[in-house]
Amino acid sequence: MHIPNATINDLTAEKNSLAFEGNQRRHLLDLDDFSPEDLDLLFDTTHAMREILDREIKKAPTLRGKSVVTVFYEPSTRTRVSFEQAAKILSADVINLSVEASSITKGESLLETIQTLEALKADLVVLRHPHAGAPHLLAQHLQKVSIINAGDGSHAHPTQALSDLYTIRQRLDFSQGIKVVIIGDVAHSRVAKSNMQILSMMGARITLCGPPTLIPLELFQSKYPNQPNNVEIETNLDQALEKADVVMVLRLQHERQQSGLLPSLREYARLYQLNEERLKLAKPNALVLHPGPVNEGIEISPEVTHGTQSMVQQQITNGLAIRMALLYLMLTPYPQANLI
Amino acid sequence: MHIPNATINDLTAEKNSLAFEGNQRRHLLDLDDFSPEDLDLLFDTTHAMREILDREIKKAPTLRGKSVVTVFYEPSTRTRVSFEQAAKILSADVINLSVEASSITKGESLLETIQTLEALKADLVVLRHPHAGAPHLLAQHLQKVSIINAGDGSHAHPTQALSDLYTIRQRLDFSQGIKVVIIGDVAHSRVAKSNMQILSMMGARITLCGPPTLIPLELFQSKYPNQPNNVEIETNLDQALEKADVVMVLRLQHERQQSGLLPSLREYARLYQLNEERLKLAKPNALVLHPGPVNEGIEISPEVTHGTQSMVQQQITNGLAIRMALLYLMLTPYPQANLI
Amino acid sequence: MHIPNATINDLTAEKNSLAFEGNQRRHLLDLDDFSPEDLDLLFDTTHAMREILDREIKKAPTLRGKSVVTVFYEPSTRTRVSFEQAAKILSADVINLSVEASSITKGESLLETIQTLEALKADLVVLRHPHAGAPHLLAQHLQKVSIINAGDGSHAHPTQALSDLYTIRQRLDFSQGIKVVIIGDVAHSRVAKSNMQILSMMGARITLCGPPTLIPLELFQSKYPNQPNNVEIETNLDQALEKADVVMVLRLQHERQQSGLLPSLREYARLYQLNEERLKLAKPNALVLHPGPVNEGIEISPEVTHGTQSMVQQQITNGLAIRMALLYLMLTPYPQANLI
Repeated sequence: MHIPNATINDLTAEKNSLAFEGNQRRHLLDLDDFSPEDLDLLFDTTHAMREILDREIKKAPTLRGKSVVTVFYEPSTRTRVSFEQAAKILSADVINLSVEASSITKGESLLETIQTLEALKADLVVLRHPHAGAPHLLAQHLQKVSIINAGDGSHAHPTQALSDLYTIRQRLDFSQGIKVVIIGDVAHSRVAKSNMQILSMMGARITLCGPPTLIPLELFQSKYPNQPNNVEIETNLDQALEKADVVMVLRLQHERQQSGLLPSLREYARLYQLNEERLKLAKPNALVLHPGPVNEGIEISPEVTHGTQSMVQQQITNGLAIRMALLYLMLTPYPQANLI
Repeated sequence: MHIPNATINDLTAEKNSLAFEGNQRRHLLDLDDFSPEDLDLLFDTTHAMREILDREIKKAPTLRGKSVVTVFYEPSTRTRVSFEQAAKILSADVINLSVEASSITKGESLLETIQTLEALKADLVVLRHPHAGAPHLLAQHLQKVSIINAGDGSHAHPTQALSDLYTIRQRLDFSQGIKVVIIGDVAHSRVAKSNMQILSMMGARITLCGPPTLIPLELFQSKYPNQPNNVEIETNLDQALEKADVVMVLRLQHERQQSGLLPSLREYARLYQLNEERLKLAKPNALVLHPGPVNEGIEISPEVTHGTQSMVQQQITNGLAIRMALLYLMLTPYPQANLI
Repeated sequence: MHIPNATINDLTAEKNSLAFEGNQRRHLLDLDDFSPEDLDLLFDTTHAMREILDREIKKAPTLRGKSVVTVFYEPSTRTRVSFEQAAKILSADVINLSVEASSITKGESLLETIQTLEALKADLVVLRHPHAGAPHLLAQHLQKVSIINAGDGSHAHPTQALSDLYTIRQRLDFSQGIKVVIIGDVAHSRVAKSNMQILSMMGARITLCGPPTLIPLELFQSKYPNQPNNVEIETNLDQALEKADVVMVLRLQHERQQSGLLPSLREYARLYQLNEERLKLAKPNALVLHPGPVNEGIEISPEVTHGTQSMVQQQITNGLAIRMALLYLMLTPYPQANLI
C-alpha cells in the first residue's frame, strides 16, 4: 500500500461514522463524525478521569489485559508520554515503537507494521505519521486493532483539539456565542485544523490571523463550503483580537522561515506575538491556549505564557484525561460500567 | 572477552544440553539439544498460551515479580515487540535496552553489560547480537540470569524456527513425510539455519533453492555429516517446488546486491519470486511461510503474501505464544503448575 | 530559563535542606544536606530492600499508582536501568524519555519539559543532564513533582555515592578511621565529587591520586574550606595506596586524551592502573570499587576487576536497593509504614 499525501477531501470517504453510543467506535481518525452526544459522553467520562488523577493512588484496573502500542514516525515527547501515562494509569500494558523518519522508505511498510501488531494482539495503536491520511487508509485494512490518530501530517490532531475544547468548556458557555482567534501558521497546523472542525460544530466564530503566506484563503473555501460564515481571516492581529473569548496561539515551526514563507522571526514576533499589551485588546479574562512546546519570545511572550489567563498547563492535564477517557470508551464494551 | 564470529562447529561445545523435563533449561541458545519430548512439552504449553491470547482479558499473573530485559544490538521491531508482549501478558516486568551498532566497539562490553543486568536482578535476557555465537559465549560466564537467543549473526534464530514448526504442525503430520522448500539467501539466514536444524530432527525432507552464490554446498556437508540425505539443493525453482508441502520464503536483504552476490533485484524476482503460478507447482494447499518483514514484489508476490495459503499472520501470533511458553517454562520451577 | 554551567559554590544556595525525618524530602539534588540520621534511615530502608531482591517473587505493591519518569539527556545504560528496575519492583509505573544531546538547543526547553511531565501527573523525575546545576535550578520552579539528580555534568551523582558508601559500610567501620584512595580523573568526575562529600561527612581520610592535569589543587581548597585536613593529593600511586582501606578507581574517559589532558592511554596505564601488584600495597582485604563501566587494562587490570577484593557487582546490586529505598522514602508519607 502506498500512502500518498491525501487531500483533505479524499479523507472524507474513509472516515468512521460510528458514534460511541449505540455502536462502539473502532477508530479515532478525525472529528468529522463526532455528534454532540458523543462529545457529552466523552467529556463526562473525562471529568471522571480527572478525579482519578487527583487521587493519592492514581490507578484504576479498567484496562487490565489490554495492550496499547504507540507507533511514532515523528519525534514527540508530550503526546507520546500523555498516551503512555493515560494507558498505564488505567492498567493497560504499553509498548512503544519509534520509527525514524529515515526508515520510512516505502509506504507499504506501515501497513505491514500495524498488521504485525494486530497479529501480536495489540488492542489499540496510537499512530503519529508525517503523511496526511495515513491512519484513515490503514483503518480500511485492519480486522481488529483500533487506531487513534495522534497527528497525521498537517491534516488532523483530534485528541489535541478535544483537549482544547474540554479546556474551553470548563470556563465558557458555547451557547452564548464564542469568538476564538487562532494565530499563526494555520496552513501547516493539524492542531488548528482539528480545532476549526470541532469549534465550528460547537457554533463558535473563528478568526484566523497570521501572515497571508501561512493562511491561504482557498483552503477554507473548499473545506467548509456549507459553513463559511463562521470563519473569517484577519491579517491584523490587533483587529483580530477584538472581543475574543479565546486566543489560541500556534507554535511557529522554524522550518517555515527557511522555506521562504516567513521574512524573519523578529518580523513575525513584531507583527504576531501575543504579548500582554495585545492581550488586553481581547475580552477581559479571555483564555490563552497553546498546544506546546512554546517558543517563548517568538509567538508568545513569557509573561502571557505564564500569566493568569494562560491555560497551557490545564491543556496538558486535560489532554491526559481526554486520552484516558478515549481509551476507556474504545476498549471496553458499550455501555461501560461505572468507573471505579 | 572478545567475541569472535565463531564458526558453527565451535558452538557445539557451548550448547546447553539440559532439557525442560527433569532438569530446568537455563538458556535457549540453539535448537541442537531439543528432544522430541521437549518439543511436545513446549507445544502443549504454547497451545495453552494461545488460549490466553483469545481471552477478553489476556493477562495471567504467572511471571509476576520476574524481570525480563531485551537487549538488541541490531534494530528489530517484530521480535522485540513479540518478546515484550509475551512477557507483559504473563505479568513480568520488561526493560528494553537497544544498543546502536556504532557503540559496539569492543566485544568485552557485551559481557559487562549482561553481568550488570544480572547484578540488577534481571531474571532473563533476550539477546539479539550481530556476532554468531555471542549468546553461547556469554552463557558460560553468567551465574543466574537466563539467556534467550533472539538472533545471533547469521547463525541461529531458534524462537522463529520454533514458531514456524508449530505453525506447520497445526496443519500437517510429520509422520507422513513432509517436503519443505526453503527459497532464498540460505547462507546468510539464521532463520533458515534454525529451521533446517529442527525440521531435520522432525524427519522432514528439505530442498534449498536460490542462486548458487547464496547456497554454498560445503556449508551443509560440514554441518550435517550424519544426515545428509534429507537436504538437497535445487537451483531451479519450478523443479524445487514439485510436491512441496511447505514453501518457506526468506527475506532478501538488499545488501546482498550491493556486495555483488546478486546480479539485480529484477533478475532475482524473475528467477526466484514465489508467485501464484509457481505456487501451483507445489502440492494443493501447500503452506507458505515467510518470517517477515516481506519485500512484496521481490521474493514473494502480493497475491501469495495475502493469499489463502499464506501463514504469515499465523506465524506472528504463534511466535508470541511460543515466546510466552518459553518464558513460562524457563522462569518457573519444573514441574510447572497448571496455567491459570 | 537558561541553565548555565553553575559553579559549585553557586549551587549551595539552591540545595534542599529538608531531611527525611520530620520533614519529607522533596528532591535529591546533592548530598550536602544529608544528616547522619538521614543516612541511618536510608540505609536501614536499603537493607530491607535488599531482602526483597532475594525473594522468589521480587515485587512489592508499595508504589502502586505512582509515576516515575526517567529523563536522560546523556546516554546511560546502568543508571537508567537501575532506576527503572527499582521503580518497577516497587510497582510504580515508569516512563522513559531519552533526549539526544543534539536537541538541547536552548536551556528553556528543559524546564518546559519537566513542567509538562508535572502536568502529566508524574510524581518523580529522575534527571541526568550534561549541565552542572540543572536539577537544582529546576527544583526552584516545580510545584509538585520530585527530582532525583542522576548525574549533572561533572558536579554530582548522589545515588552512586550513596551506593558506594553503603557498600563500604557493609564491610568496614568508619568509627575506626578509614582511608579511601580515589584514583583517576577527579576533576571531571561527578562520582568522585559526590563520594568526597559524603565520605568527608563520615570522617574518612581521602587521598586523591592521578595526573596533576586531572586533579587541580584549587578545586578542593575552595570546595572544602572548613575541612581541608581530610583530603590530600598524592600523585604517586604506590605511595597513595599505603594503608588504604578502600581503593576507588574512576573510569577514564577517552575524551581526556583527545583534549590534551593525558599524554597517552599506555602512559596512564603504566602510572595509574590498579593491578594486583599495586593492590598489595594497600591494606590486606582492602575494598576495590569502580562505578563502571570498566575499561579493563586501562585504569584497572582484569585480575583486580574480577578478583576477590572487587566490589563491582555488589555496588550495582546495592545501587538498585538504594534507589528503591529513595523512591520509597520520597514517594510515601513519612513516617512510612513497614515494608511488606
